[in-house]
This record gives sequence, C-alpha cells and structure tokens, in this order.
Amino acid sequence: MSKYQEVVEDIIHKIEKNEYTDKLPTEDQLIEQYQVSRNTIRNAIRTLKKQGTLFSIQGSGVFVRHTRDDDSLWMNGSCGITENAPRHKITTDVKGFHIMMAGEELSKRMQCELTTPIYYIERVRKMDGVPMAIEYTYYNKDLVPSLDRRIASQSIYSYIKNDLKLSIGFADKYFHVKQLSAQEASILGLEEGSPALEVEDYVHLSNGQLFNVSRIVYNYKTTNFYASNVD
Amino acid sequence: MSKYQEVVEDIIHKIEKNEYTDKLPTEDQLIEQYQVSRNTIRNAIRTLKKQGTLFSIQGSGVFVRHTRDDDSLWMNGSCGITENAPRHKITTDVKGFHIMMAGEELSKRMQCELTTPIYYIERVRKMDGVPMAIEYTYYNKDLVPSLDRRIASQSIYSYIKNDLKLSIGFADKYFHVKQLSAQEASILGLEEGSPALEVEDYVHLSNGQLFNVSRIVYNYKTTNFYASNVD
Repeated sequence: MSKYQEVVEDIIHKIEKNEYTDKLPTEDQLIEQYQVSRNTIRNAIRTLKKQGTLFSIQGSGVFVRHTRDDDSLWMNGSCGITENAPRHKITTDVKGFHIMMAGEELSKRMQCELTTPIYYIERVRKMDGVPMAIEYTYYNKDLVPSLDRRIASQSIYSYIKNDLKLSIGFADKYFHVKQLSAQEASILGLEEGSPALEVEDYVHLSNGQLFNVSRIVYNYKTTNFYASNVD
Repeated sequence: MSKYQEVVEDIIHKIEKNEYTDKLPTEDQLIEQYQVSRNTIRNAIRTLKKQGTLFSIQGSGVFVRHTRDDDSLWMNGSCGITENAPRHKITTDVKGFHIMMAGEELSKRMQCELTTPIYYIERVRKMDGVPMAIEYTYYNKDLVPSLDRRIASQSIYSYIKNDLKLSIGFADKYFHVKQLSAQEASILGLEEGSPALEVEDYVHLSNGQLFNVSRIVYNYKTTNFYASNVD
C-alpha cells in the first residue's frame, strides 16, 4: 500500500472510531503525526474529499462529512463491485467468456479500430450468496491482455491494477430504470417486470484510453446506491 | 457571470463547435487568450474536470473527455433540475407549501435543533410539459429565509444563489429503485407498480450546514441519469 493510502485508511479508521468527529488536525500536524510529506497529506485529503468523507471550509480547515453509514454502492467512483462492498463477500459466476473481433458497432462503442480483439464476459455477481447484478462486459484485449475465465471469476479490476499495473482513470456512468425481462428476472430470482437499475459504464485508463464498457443490471431488492459530490 | 464561469462557458461552446476536439491549449495560452489570471483558468478547468468535460494526463496536458451528448441528469453535481436540464423547459406545480416546527425525527434528519422552523414543499417538476419528478422537500428556514409559493413555483436554487447569495457546497445522494404507488403513478401519468428511481438528497452550504433534504421520485420513461467521476 502506498504511503498516501496508508494515511487514507488511518483517517477513515479514526473517523469510524470517533477519534475524528468534526475538524481534522491541520496539515502541519498531520505531517508531524504521520511523518510523511506535505504532498502525501494533500493527496490523502483530496482522495477523502472526492469520496465524500471530508470537506473543506475555506479559511477554516478540513472537516468530517457525516454521510450515512450504510451499504450503498458508490456510483461516482471508478472501482469495481468488490472494492465497493468491502463488508460483504462478493462471489462471481462466469456465465459466458469469449474473444471476438470488434465489428462496426462495437469498435465505435469501444473507441477502437475495426478487428481489435475484444473479450466479452457475462457474469452474475453475488453478495453474500444473493444475486445482486448481471454484468455484460467488454474489455479491449490490446489494453487488457491475458484475461481468462479464472481471473474473470474473481475481481478483474484487482488483476488490472495489481498484476497488469494499469492505472484506472475516469469513468462515465449512464443509468436508467427499466423492467426486467423474464430471463434477467430468473437469474436475479425476481419476477418478470420487476424494476431494475441498468448502468452503462465506460471506464478509461489514466491516459484516457477506454478499456472497459459494461452494462450492469442490478437487483433492486439487494442494492442501494450513493453519489457524493464536491463543491 | 463571474470570469471563471465565462471561461467555462466559452470552453464548453468551443467543444460543442468542435473547435476543441482533443488537447486543450496550455494554461499560458489560455491566460493569454482570455486575458485572465492563472487562478481563473485553473478554477475553470477544475470545474470542467469535475463535470466530466475535461481530464488531465500528467505531464501531457488537459484533454476533452468525450461523454455522450444526451439529456441525462448529472447525478453528482449539487445543482437543481433547472440548471441540470438547460435544453428543456422546466415548469413546476407547487402541490403543497407550509411551515412546520422540527420534531424529533425531522430535527435528526435535518441536523437542526428541535422546534427549528422548516419549510415543507411538495412539487411536481415537468420537462417540456411532461411530469418528470415528484419532489418532497424540506428547507431549514433559519438558513433559507423568506421562501414563498411564488419562489417555489420557479427554481428555489437560483433564489438561494442569486437572491440570498448563499454558496451551495456538497450534496449526498442516496438512491434506490422501487415500484410506484397508485398516487405517485397517477401524478406521473404511469401505471401503479411502474419502476421508479427514488433519490434522497442531502444538500449542504459551503460552510457544511445542511439546508435542504429532499426525496425525489423520477419518471423512468422521461429521465435518464449520468454520473461522472475523476480519478
């Protein structure tokens, strides 16, 4: 874990333990306390502001932002489901896995050349054993090589970050509400026509390249969502 | 309009006109071009990055982020519906408007003292004449004084910003999918049991004070959503 991540974890821990309940120590105090550079402290605080954990009041300091302590998935991060639900056991059934060449429509959607090799993966993600989402996912094989069924049965994002050492940048999520088809309903253990949130997710590397496009259908009974914003 | 906002508007305009399609001019070039301070340019770029319009590649510069050009509502901003749908005519029917004193439950939810005066407002927001959302909203009267039915029939946020000169800070949005009750369905012109996105919105001033709590039920047929994120 990098130094700034250690600081992030420790500040979250202190907030959970009610050691920090209102105003945080000053930047200078945090530097002294963690024995790290000013830059490290600033990175940690920036990350916690983006996550909705802290906020700044100009001229006054950095404060704890009291968001509700629940199990909602954070919708404006670019992490996967596994990182997004740290308190739960996420398991994955790989329903489909194959490689195809990008045709006209897919190359447009994936912002890649025609005939680029693309992984297509269908997965059912379960939270504590209960189906929470159906994922239909495309990965650009030129950017994310050597994916296989075994990796897909776990967290693909942790493979991308930890094994491929790629840096995930920004994501665009488009979402709408719809009614489940009979097939989706049966996978999620719900009735046909039940409501569902469907998310189209376009995820880019830090260099701006689009590597992953997904359509995700969530089980409305098991899944709530959260979006933070900063001013 | 402040200077940095003028720069924001102009950059958006240039992206729409395909004058900026990839990399933006450098900071120095933008300072020269707009005849404003470095701080103004940085504020403008920061805003556009948060909105998902631009992104940075370290060491390379600032680039146009090609998000889909559609009418989705931006879910991780803290603007109201009127600002969020600039290409549409938003009208508002005020269904209920009264002042109450915060009881035990409401004072907890609004993070205010018992007996704080609270406006409760029920509105139906229409987009181009079609009901798009039912809003059940509470405002802390100590923070947002002098609200009335006339103001509530327009954009309350523009009243807060332009007339009261309050600075809106951050918002927490919790959302889930549900089925419409018969009453909500009839207001939105849908069938009972239709799917709906319901958002609980907690909006704070820049000084951290919670001034507005809303529950908003959206028409799934007319409304799509977008969440941007930065790395």
